[in-house]
Amino acid sequence: MALESVTALFFDVFGTVVDWRSSIIAELEEFGRKKGIEADWPTFADDWRGLYEPSMDAIRCGNREWRPLDTLHRESLITLISRHNITGLNEEEIDHLNKAWHRLDPWPDSVEGLTGLRKKHILATLSNGNVSLLVNMAKRAELPWDAVLGAEPARAYKPMPQSYLRNAQYLDMEPGECMLVAAHNYDLAAARTLGFRTAFTCRPSEYGPGQDKDLKAESDWDIVTDTMTGVAGALGC
Amino acid sequence: MALESVTALFFDVFGTVVDWRSSIIAELEEFGRKKGIEADWPTFADDWRGLYEPSMDAIRCGNREWRPLDTLHRESLITLISRHNITGLNEEEIDHLNKAWHRLDPWPDSVEGLTGLRKKHILATLSNGNVSLLVNMAKRAELPWDAVLGAEPARAYKPMPQSYLRNAQYLDMEPGECMLVAAHNYDLAAARTLGFRTAFTCRPSEYGPGQDKDLKAESDWDIVTDTMTGVAGALGC
Repeated sequence: MALESVTALFFDVFGTVVDWRSSIIAELEEFGRKKGIEADWPTFADDWRGLYEPSMDAIRCGNREWRPLDTLHRESLITLISRHNITGLNEEEIDHLNKAWHRLDPWPDSVEGLTGLRKKHILATLSNGNVSLLVNMAKRAELPWDAVLGAEPARAYKPMPQSYLRNAQYLDMEPGECMLVAAHNYDLAAARTLGFRTAFTCRPSEYGPGQDKDLKAESDWDIVTDTMTGVAGALGC
Repeated sequence: MALESVTALFFDVFGTVVDWRSSIIAELEEFGRKKGIEADWPTFADDWRGLYEPSMDAIRCGNREWRPLDTLHRESLITLISRHNITGLNEEEIDHLNKAWHRLDPWPDSVEGLTGLRKKHILATLSNGNVSLLVNMAKRAELPWDAVLGAEPARAYKPMPQSYLRNAQYLDMEPGECMLVAAHNYDLAAARTLGFRTAFTCRPSEYGPGQDKDLKAESDWDIVTDTMTGVAGALGC
């Protein structure tokens, strides 16, 4: 297996390591109960994630200066609060809701898989989430990262080439010494083009019951599995 | 105690967390034995550290583009190999020696102190060392960082203000929520000016038997101690 050259494992986080949808719905529902607000919270969560990719586009194409994901998430949240006709929230409550993205729960196999992988590899995030989001998440969920990297230290959102290459540089690695672990085919495709090795962890419930994408590997990724422990097994950890 | 607002602890690393001098001398001596090279290795180590501050100056004042510390260390190493009349080293050997800075041993109290502190605080490096150096060091020495930050992600060497402020921003913290832990008065002074809290850990053997600086706190730092476990104790951890 030509994967012996892999020293650093980079991880997509939202969907790959953590179950953002269930976590966000649970946070919204709890908030709604406490505040006595009725809303279609699963749809609200899906709408929030739906604004995720578009929110980064202006930055990706250089029409807007760098902003961390917390800022983009908050702008989307304000839009959706209005769209869902929710009123009466103060700034502190909006901030609390926005930081629900710092409190996402891992998939059941994530911590065990990462712990195994960490014995032989350097584990780093390569997420569009900002550093504080990822640090707070890791602290709460006990994700054993060696380095919290990603779009923010690279000042480039995935799938821009710089987001992969600058993170490899931070670890002083050639792309061929790096593997991206992700539940999203587009992310792996971008990383492979630059020379990264690739591991697909299928997460068929990431987007809920109606999920219609990333239900299977769309290329011959170096590893194809559906758990983080599966990645560990494939790498002999 | 007004230290309850401190959420993030930033750590100087060389001298504060790790004993660079003993580690570098041991690496040089081992290398010398294997290669049959005689030299005054303690002086070589001191000379190498002596070139550390000057090597960053051109970058600090904007006369040279950003370079990671590994690059500056290597340039200094080449200078010293020549100055100490050492010949016959190939590129691989020079790289191996240069990465001795990735293999520094912690002071005996560091891991225990950091482990205690980590239960209540976010722990991040704020070192002039580059990310790969700090990640490799942490992996080997089992330093439990929540985030590996510092001069490289900030693109500014200490004591430039940006090196402190940009790292606080990465963690989404106000300066007053941050504390710098360092064995060097100049570093604490720069951080305090910007609003950081300060902890001085005196390391009187950092520079060897002839140490003539940082032998005592030169200001009323918030915490003054001589071990990392002492910092933990002072913060109630």
